[in-house]
Amino acid sequence: MTFQRPGGRAPDQLRPVRITRGFTIHAEGSVLIEFGNTRVLCTASVEEKVPPHKRGSGEGWVTAEYGMLPRATHTRGDREAARGKQSGRTQEIQRLIGRSLRAVFDLKKLGERTITLDCDVLQADGGTRTAAITGAFVAAQDAVGKLLAAGTLAESPVLGPVAAISVGIVEGTPLLDLEYVEDVACDTDMNIVMTGAGHYVEVQGTAEGVAFTRAEMDELLRLAEKGISELVGLQRQALGV
Amino acid sequence: MTFQRPGGRAPDQLRPVRITRGFTIHAEGSVLIEFGNTRVLCTASVEEKVPPHKRGSGEGWVTAEYGMLPRATHTRGDREAARGKQSGRTQEIQRLIGRSLRAVFDLKKLGERTITLDCDVLQADGGTRTAAITGAFVAAQDAVGKLLAAGTLAESPVLGPVAAISVGIVEGTPLLDLEYVEDVACDTDMNIVMTGAGHYVEVQGTAEGVAFTRAEMDELLRLAEKGISELVGLQRQALGV
Amino acid sequence: MTFQRPGGRAPDQLRPVRITRGFTIHAEGSVLIEFGNTRVLCTASVEEKVPPHKRGSGEGWVTAEYGMLPRATHTRGDREAARGKQSGRTQEIQRLIGRSLRAVFDLKKLGERTITLDCDVLQADGGTRTAAITGAFVAAQDAVGKLLAAGTLAESPVLGPVAAISVGIVEGTPLLDLEYVEDVACDTDMNIVMTGAGHYVEVQGTAEGVAFTRAEMDELLRLAEKGISELVGLQRQALGV
Amino acid sequence: MTFQRPGGRAPDQLRPVRITRGFTIHAEGSVLIEFGNTRVLCTASVEEKVPPHKRGSGEGWVTAEYGMLPRATHTRGDREAARGKQSGRTQEIQRLIGRSLRAVFDLKKLGERTITLDCDVLQADGGTRTAAITGAFVAAQDAVGKLLAAGTLAESPVLGPVAAISVGIVEGTPLLDLEYVEDVACDTDMNIVMTGAGHYVEVQGTAEGVAFTRAEMDELLRLAEKGISELVGLQRQALGV
Amino acid sequence: MTFQRPGGRAPDQLRPVRITRGFTIHAEGSVLIEFGNTRVLCTASVEEKVPPHKRGSGEGWVTAEYGMLPRATHTRGDREAARGKQSGRTQEIQRLIGRSLRAVFDLKKLGERTITLDCDVLQADGGTRTAAITGAFVAAQDAVGKLLAAGTLAESPVLGPVAAISVGIVEGTPLLDLEYVEDVACDTDMNIVMTGAGHYVEVQGTAEGVAFTRAEMDELLRLAEKGISELVGLQRQALGV
Amino acid sequence: MTFQRPGGRAPDQLRPVRITRGFTIHAEGSVLIEFGNTRVLCTASVEEKVPPHKRGSGEGWVTAEYGMLPRATHTRGDREAARGKQSGRTQEIQRLIGRSLRAVFDLKKLGERTITLDCDVLQADGGTRTAAITGAFVAAQDAVGKLLAAGTLAESPVLGPVAAISVGIVEGTPLLDLEYVEDVACDTDMNIVMTGAGHYVEVQGTAEGVAFTRAEMDELLRLAEKGISELVGLQRQALGV
Repeated sequence: MTFQRPGGRAPDQLRPVRITRGFTIHAEGSVLIEFGNTRVLCTASVEEKVPPHKRGSGEGWVTAEYGMLPRATHTRGDREAARGKQSGRTQEIQRLIGRSLRAVFDLKKLGERTITLDCDVLQADGGTRTAAITGAFVAAQDAVGKLLAAGTLAESPVLGPVAAISVGIVEGTPLLDLEYVEDVACDTDMNIVMTGAGHYVEVQGTAEGVAFTRAEMDELLRLAEKGISELVGLQRQALGV
Repeated sequence: MTFQRPGGRAPDQLRPVRITRGFTIHAEGSVLIEFGNTRVLCTASVEEKVPPHKRGSGEGWVTAEYGMLPRATHTRGDREAARGKQSGRTQEIQRLIGRSLRAVFDLKKLGERTITLDCDVLQADGGTRTAAITGAFVAAQDAVGKLLAAGTLAESPVLGPVAAISVGIVEGTPLLDLEYVEDVACDTDMNIVMTGAGHYVEVQGTAEGVAFTRAEMDELLRLAEKGISELVGLQRQALGV
Repeated sequence: MTFQRPGGRAPDQLRPVRITRGFTIHAEGSVLIEFGNTRVLCTASVEEKVPPHKRGSGEGWVTAEYGMLPRATHTRGDREAARGKQSGRTQEIQRLIGRSLRAVFDLKKLGERTITLDCDVLQADGGTRTAAITGAFVAAQDAVGKLLAAGTLAESPVLGPVAAISVGIVEGTPLLDLEYVEDVACDTDMNIVMTGAGHYVEVQGTAEGVAFTRAEMDELLRLAEKGISELVGLQRQALGV
Repeated sequence: MTFQRPGGRAPDQLRPVRITRGFTIHAEGSVLIEFGNTRVLCTASVEEKVPPHKRGSGEGWVTAEYGMLPRATHTRGDREAARGKQSGRTQEIQRLIGRSLRAVFDLKKLGERTITLDCDVLQADGGTRTAAITGAFVAAQDAVGKLLAAGTLAESPVLGPVAAISVGIVEGTPLLDLEYVEDVACDTDMNIVMTGAGHYVEVQGTAEGVAFTRAEMDELLRLAEKGISELVGLQRQALGV
Repeated sequence: MTFQRPGGRAPDQLRPVRITRGFTIHAEGSVLIEFGNTRVLCTASVEEKVPPHKRGSGEGWVTAEYGMLPRATHTRGDREAARGKQSGRTQEIQRLIGRSLRAVFDLKKLGERTITLDCDVLQADGGTRTAAITGAFVAAQDAVGKLLAAGTLAESPVLGPVAAISVGIVEGTPLLDLEYVEDVACDTDMNIVMTGAGHYVEVQGTAEGVAFTRAEMDELLRLAEKGISELVGLQRQALGV
Repeated sequence: MTFQRPGGRAPDQLRPVRITRGFTIHAEGSVLIEFGNTRVLCTASVEEKVPPHKRGSGEGWVTAEYGMLPRATHTRGDREAARGKQSGRTQEIQRLIGRSLRAVFDLKKLGERTITLDCDVLQADGGTRTAAITGAFVAAQDAVGKLLAAGTLAESPVLGPVAAISVGIVEGTPLLDLEYVEDVACDTDMNIVMTGAGHYVEVQGTAEGVAFTRAEMDELLRLAEKGISELVGLQRQALGV
């Protein structure tokens, strides 16, 4: 028997996704992305400098930082700034976002400048890292648009879209885009990052309970491909391209 | 000659203030407060425990934490969680918010529980600490409302409203509610926290340039009193009381 | 044309693997595992206490810490203890090792005690995290053996073996068990953790250069399955079971 | 009825103030200042460099650090160096001292050098921050005197004296210069920093208990003005000017 | 030819030593000790608790912390509290002071309480750690005196005096009690801690330049014995015993 | 009556010492040194840069870092990298190793480069710091040999061998080279570092229980001299010189 999702959602159905550009005024790109009740503010900041390992290389850098407001979740979590360090989970997520975005950037064409994607979770309900990647791409695209409009860049360094989605197995049912109650109940949790061309950038699957079989993995990959194809469509629609 | 404010604002005029309750879903109180372009998310979280210095006292505690998203400002600032410590400015502000809220709480009536006000600046344009105090009061009131509705509290521990505003002197003109461009240009910067009854909770004045006279201070106090009276009205309106 | 591996190794061939039990004398389990020139010391320490989130639960805990000696690599790296914090990479790896080992432990049967796996890289030549997981399982098994022999445990909490291997694509050729020079040259890098039964515990694939296709992923998964099957055999041989 | 002060002190009376120049031998300025039992060692150190935000500006910098010996107080406090960070209170105080001293310095005339005021409390009995500011001015003046005598500076960058005092309301009585037992009992606590010309540099008032009225504030400002006028006289006397 | 000491001091002559008891008012013992221009404030604080490794043992603990005011030296040093950690040198010295004091304490007789010796250098001119040990003994003795007077202790836990002195070889001449200019010039630097009975508690000798011979060590030990005998006399005189 | 040592070792007898060069492949010098069950991996890393205080001086630098794997000991210790700081003991030991090695280096002849000795304890059974110094010298010599062979250095900067040993008094019997069970039982513990010429580089003696007499110190120094003479012979044998 199949697991019944909250709100009667189909197993291969995304939550309602909303992408709001220009959510704040200062950043070169500023996007509020919502996957159902998950809300992440993604800003893209352009700085005319690069980290030490890129200095003098003629190449730019794209990096990300991730944070969660203390009461974005059901119970209040510690403020990482007050505790004095970022958790292993936070560091893992921001490294993932950074790698995902770099996968669709030609750093040579970007030139010696840095785009920093700040992804701050205002409200969490599962899937914050995948929402962050999907929203960060739109913010990055907006920042690049400003650089092109200003003539700072002659040609876009963006190779194509990138988006991410979670998939998992709950009570034997493979599901697309897990929300919080599904996430805590799932046996297997997988985050997939793919390009608009349908190629893999990252695959991170973890058996939380029992190990999963090859057949289950194949089904999860199929769901993810469907979801990411829809997300890329929504990114394009939001960007009007 | 008088300093001309951006947008033709009068010297004793507040920026448009908006108070949105229920901005996020998990916290017991969640308020987005806007003073013009300054936007601060204030959440109130209730926890059934108190810090060590209150254990066994029968009294509760009210405290605050403050943060600013890295790109809330014109140029991106360091993420304090990544840098591994909160700046002196951050600590000073969150101590101020905590003291201001405690001034209108009867900790005995609150019982042995803690209300934590998280004030996170989504967008900054001057006056973030005063917006934070003014919004945090509304969030705290909502959290108390939930405790009363649930029967956890029989009587409200809130003694009355508290609100805050900045005043300052720019090019010789005393102004109410400084926005960013005024803040950087001002000679004197003062933050005032007052109760609904018109009494002082905090007065923090700093001469950024030349020291200020007693006559100037009197004029600044007059402006602040007017502004806070209006803010308290807006808090009441938002709370429907 | 196929990429030529150092030492004429076949694309689907593991490096010589050596597992030395009892490498040091104090730990309940102490294993030196070598994947070619990669050498990791894995010790298992049993402590009769559990972390806070398990206290009173009747369940135990299995966790891991990972470190690399400063000169385990070609050029000396910072000592993390001297720098005052563990890198994001270190934390990511030790979280992976911990999750992988917990996947084959029945924490209920372990009882309220903790097994800590310390994985310290004495010499690095690629694949340190996969060697660490593979060696840590043997050390954990030895620690469990001591608890059974002492009568502390009546029944083994180990559900079965777990092992890990890296796979990747270098110049278009899918390869098993990347060594350092292959790792820096690869377009796609994937770490796979599997049980003795051939089920997945973790799949972590990253496109370092171009995104990879579904066909490439299928070939990588095939190589990993072959490698892990061999590693599980070597674990069994080392343990004499 | 009026509150009876320890030792029969009048409400508007300072504690005995002693200013000892040349208390230690190495610093360019070294002053032990005593407000009754409160004893603060203030040293002024001149360094021929400026912090990054002043480099190349032609301007100098004046800054302060504050500390309290662990047993300066009734019960031993943590050593901040051992705990690994300065408290919010410490940072707030040292920022206040720095701003207060900068208010009477022409940084252009100082040239690209830094004067650091170290204010270390040897013994605490209330009013350590106001004693620190008052003593730091004398130490800074001595350091400037050395720079003038050596011909490093042709003209003094000091615009005039600055001093500070606390005032507060205890059991309804406004008092000047609170000592420890008064400080813990007070409803309102205010620290005032003023120039020799009687203008305000900082006003920091906090209602510890009930909020205070405008009339109370006016009385506190009057007391502070009297106290600071006396302190400036004592500074002049100590400096022999 | 023999090295000429500043001020014409003989090679086996101590600097003028002054021991001022009751230097501050709050601590159970408070001693300012001066070895020439070296001035260290040593306070002894009694707390009715012990660190974890002594809980329930019936034994007490004696420990020390050491600090140097930023401008105790010729050029300003970093404030360790601001830098966020104590240097290796600081930790080494405070461990030495703690061990030295424990050597003359019967922890059983002290009972489950802690004496903390805070040694803060107000002015440095060589020999700060030896002055600290010598002064800390007097402060500890005063604290014990208070415990005896109050009847908290029936019998003194102090076994006898302990004192410390530095010796060294400068330009071939063995010297007692090095001051700063001698310390920076010396080839060998040795700190000796001895009991009143003339037995060794600590011997720490370091060849800064060329290694030293057994004959040189014998001469240094002879000088130290003479110096410590005089210091113990001065401690007794200060304590009036 | 004399204390009976484990394994019937004579009071003036070293444990079996083994020195294995080339233990790992990447470092310029890599030595596993064993004093009985104590095993320390000492690597020497050459870097073509110097710390700030040596820049432009024409001189090089020799420094050391020390660490202990968490389960090198009977019970697991905290990982210092995870705890976020090195203990006082660790810092004290690595400063000692660094000073000891610098005592036999002509930094002028080394030129502006740094040799870092990493001493990591794989297994501890007393005497880890003395084994570390003795092994680090061999690793440093190997690194210098590589620099000479490559023509980077024309002349060796090594002045001669350096080695270290512990001595102590257990139940009244002076012993050479304490192993763990002797170390915890000893009244006096002394670490001696000497050159091949029989001169002292460091003498660090501590009375753990009762203070020790001059006669006892003389006997300990005699034992240390014998032990170090043997260790220097073993270093020469290992180096084939």
